[in-house]
Amino acid sequence: MQESNPLGTHSVCQIALVVDDIRAYAARYARLLGLPMPEIRETATAEHTGIRYRGDPTGARAKLAFFQAGPQLAIELIEPIGGPSIWREHLDAHGPGVHHIAFRVPDMDQVVANLADEDMPVAQSGRFSGGRYAYIDSVAQLGVMLELLANDDQ
Amino acid sequence: MQESNPLGTHSVCQIALVVDDIRAYAARYARLLGLPMPEIRETATAEHTGIRYRGDPTGARAKLAFFQAGPQLAIELIEPIGGPSIWREHLDAHGPGVHHIAFRVPDMDQVVANLADEDMPVAQSGRFSGGRYAYIDSVAQLGVMLELLANDDQ
Repeated sequence: MQESNPLGTHSVCQIALVVDDIRAYAARYARLLGLPMPEIRETATAEHTGIRYRGDPTGARAKLAFFQAGPQLAIELIEPIGGPSIWREHLDAHGPGVHHIAFRVPDMDQVVANLADEDMPVAQSGRFSGGRYAYIDSVAQLGVMLELLANDDQ
Repeated sequence: MQESNPLGTHSVCQIALVVDDIRAYAARYARLLGLPMPEIRETATAEHTGIRYRGDPTGARAKLAFFQAGPQLAIELIEPIGGPSIWREHLDAHGPGVHHIAFRVPDMDQVVANLADEDMPVAQSGRFSGGRYAYIDSVAQLGVMLELLANDDQ
């Protein structure tokens, strides 16, 4: 059900950290949370993801690991690899730490337009198997970056 | 139900940001999330909270605002006021941004001991109406600070 606010939802589905050694961080989170060591996946190549970073194509990829930290929320770990990305930008500027909070949105194009109208433009976007994502440059207004997630079948 | 991992739970209940103008941030989050502007509360004085910052008493307080961002998770905004605190430390070092993720723990003393055994000591602690909290210095291991929350009736 779509809500009438700019995001079309109010439910956070992920909190994500960028890290410099995903295997080490994943092992520590697995121990802390009492969850199995997750599979560490690599994002697909740019020809499959169509990744764009601040308007331009990039060869950036990432290693990803997910922990289901309760029914609503996943903790995501991201280790940037390859070319320039908002992940690498954050890691270089701040070191390992929280990078974004994510929301599943009902209508990606509409939400992107809503946020652009409020001076929160897209910083990076791309596709993954079954859906697409957009990172929103919202740090000045909200203190943290947003990620929008949408499934292809929506 | 208590789990056997160091935290005794794996479910994140809050993500919190420190900010320098809580009214402005709260207004922007309320609009983004489509939620009412929350009440902005101040924490009680040190004689009521018994607040300790890195081992010593402090006169620190904070202005707080909460948004229920889905059934599991609250987004908390914190504006530090008064004396030295981990909130002020973070704001001075990094500016507005994500400060911690919080877990409701089944046994505060046991969890504090478990984490201290893994070189994650308490950075700040205190009481609130109906319960107590401890912030854990976990940034080096986890990339983010943890907050533990426990109700008095547990």
